[in-house]
Amino acid sequence: MKIGILGTGMVGNSIGTKLVQLGHQVMMGSRTAKNEKALAWVSAAGNGASAGTFADAASYGEMLFNCTAGIASLAALEMAGKENMKGKVLVDVGNTLDFSKGMPPTLTVCNTDSLGEQIQRAFPETKVVKSLNTMNCMLMVNPASLPGEHCVFVCGNDADAKTKVTDLLKTFGWKNLIDLGDISGSRGTDMMMPIWIRMYGAFQSVNFNYSIIRG
Amino acid sequence: MKIGILGTGMVGNSIGTKLVQLGHQVMMGSRTAKNEKALAWVSAAGNGASAGTFADAASYGEMLFNCTAGIASLAALEMAGKENMKGKVLVDVGNTLDFSKGMPPTLTVCNTDSLGEQIQRAFPETKVVKSLNTMNCMLMVNPASLPGEHCVFVCGNDADAKTKVTDLLKTFGWKNLIDLGDISGSRGTDMMMPIWIRMYGAFQSVNFNYSIIRG
Repeated sequence: MKIGILGTGMVGNSIGTKLVQLGHQVMMGSRTAKNEKALAWVSAAGNGASAGTFADAASYGEMLFNCTAGIASLAALEMAGKENMKGKVLVDVGNTLDFSKGMPPTLTVCNTDSLGEQIQRAFPETKVVKSLNTMNCMLMVNPASLPGEHCVFVCGNDADAKTKVTDLLKTFGWKNLIDLGDISGSRGTDMMMPIWIRMYGAFQSVNFNYSIIRG
Repeated sequence: MKIGILGTGMVGNSIGTKLVQLGHQVMMGSRTAKNEKALAWVSAAGNGASAGTFADAASYGEMLFNCTAGIASLAALEMAGKENMKGKVLVDVGNTLDFSKGMPPTLTVCNTDSLGEQIQRAFPETKVVKSLNTMNCMLMVNPASLPGEHCVFVCGNDADAKTKVTDLLKTFGWKNLIDLGDISGSRGTDMMMPIWIRMYGAFQSVNFNYSIIRG
């Protein structure tokens, strides 16, 4: 499948590299066509990897991943272009962490709204699925590296879009996927960030994840 | 130990009953001394159980549990009285769920503050420990009823107070306790409520809990 990755950070790198390894054709998009981090990723990821602007990547991909920093996602997606995203599945991996007020960071949106919902409202003809934003990027693409029944959450308004994303996540190695319902479930996943950050501090490691034990 | 329970709802009932079963002397406090729900609980819980006002219970207990609805907790604790709570450990189990704007509920405080922090600021000479607010009340007092390595979070500014609460929670059956650090960790635990509510909807059951898988 042709997939567009929006964002050149660790999350975009990890997901883009995994997708190339799985045989997909992946374009990494950023503000400029010649972004150094994107070009370095293309060199490292090899065959199937390419780079362009946000609009190039959004136009290229049949499925898109929002891997930009949550606080910049809406602006980045505007640059990607509504028409380029129309009718496509967009997996939103963003967390709206605001580090400007010191540590630990707070969220710029939560409780009565969420990034997933904001994106869905701004791009009503795109099928937004929120997922993967509750664990470190190494675990996102290689869940089997952490033994145990840990999970990934999925939510979105479009059932077919959720199935497509779920099927792709299974190829990453995810076995334990929890469907939280419509895109407002993004409030739930986004709001797990504060406790994640505190556990990161307590454990001094990012190599952990949530598991849900059910009776 | 003499323990004061503030609140007559399901959480106060569950914790109060468990504490009586464990041999503690427990007074349930409410707005009025003759609260029907508190008196019914005294009859059901039996020897060791008593009831009184918030102030009576706060004065009686060497350790206190805030089991009032989170949106009413600060008012209830004002009625309990600063002097009655002075120097004591208060376990805050509250969630500030606001159902007034429809379902699913939102939180009245989160992200840049939390109920645990609000209580600690309002009662600086009380040692506030936030715990138990991330699972159903049946699991709070009987974690072994759900097999598996699921966990309870603890946070607070006073290390001795956390140890006291941790020791008591172990007598409830808790084996997997995660210390999130100071009372600002209450932001983390409180903000798990939105995803809990969505999982409750997805599973149609309250019999589940978080486990943290660590590498």
